[in-house]
Amino acid sequence: MIDSTLFREAMAHVSSAVSIVTTDGEAGRTGMTVSAVCSVTDTPPTLLVCINRNSRSHDIFLHNGVFCVNVLNADHQELSGLFASKADQESRFSQAIWHKGVTGSPILEDAVVSFDCRIDTISDVGTHSVIFGVIQNIEIRHSCQALVYFRRRYHALDVQLETQT
Amino acid sequence: MIDSTLFREAMAHVSSAVSIVTTDGEAGRTGMTVSAVCSVTDTPPTLLVCINRNSRSHDIFLHNGVFCVNVLNADHQELSGLFASKADQESRFSQAIWHKGVTGSPILEDAVVSFDCRIDTISDVGTHSVIFGVIQNIEIRHSCQALVYFRRRYHALDVQLETQT
Repeated sequence: MIDSTLFREAMAHVSSAVSIVTTDGEAGRTGMTVSAVCSVTDTPPTLLVCINRNSRSHDIFLHNGVFCVNVLNADHQELSGLFASKADQESRFSQAIWHKGVTGSPILEDAVVSFDCRIDTISDVGTHSVIFGVIQNIEIRHSCQALVYFRRRYHALDVQLETQT
Repeated sequence: MIDSTLFREAMAHVSSAVSIVTTDGEAGRTGMTVSAVCSVTDTPPTLLVCINRNSRSHDIFLHNGVFCVNVLNADHQELSGLFASKADQESRFSQAIWHKGVTGSPILEDAVVSFDCRIDTISDVGTHSVIFGVIQNIEIRHSCQALVYFRRRYHALDVQLETQT
């Protein structure tokens, strides 16, 4: 059996985009930093996000039934840290500009791209809920560099190699 | 409804690691380039990979019941293109050095990290199978730079910003 320390060390070697996933609705507004986001299918347009069931935000997402994945740009390092910290939700949201998406979820004004989703299904896997969201609306901003997390450090995509495909 | 062209354009703005997922067993050996890989939970250590049910490799993965996610380094651009091309499996595997993992799946000798998995459950979502694998073994190589795909181009992680968390 692979122990959790080795698992985390190995996963730190898989680069990922960094996102703030948000929701608002009957259960209130919440947001948290996540890297476990994945494209699933374009028919219907679906992505998934994995959230620990012990997270305080978990039940708020499920109750509201909607969420928005806001993919961070290279200037969002501090915001990423803030939404991963113990700061209360009011303080978190006060540090950036947001508008309301079609689902009611907060959309980060200068995210690289925002996916506004309605929860379709949820799979429980170990400690986490895998939440599948059907995308209701998309906002893309073409001018920003992406924030990437790799080996427990932030990186900006900078060196562009020649495309082979 | 979000159309598939917009969905793909938006997903191209989400940076991702690039992996070659492989399997070997009763149904034969196969491998393909994927970016839809996601960490799920450390209890038990689980990841997921999304594979189109129309892919020729799909049923081979399911029949063998095992797979390995080999995360590519910055020198693997051509290999990534090859495993995403129409080249036959023999030609694909001939272009790199592999060894057999504990599940029997091919492990790429110089991957950044390899996750050798046994398939646990499968969720069908639209056109794709979301395949959950419990990790049986991990190989990490600490010296390599990661290959990242963003805006339909390959990048190497190069500029290291200050860590905030």
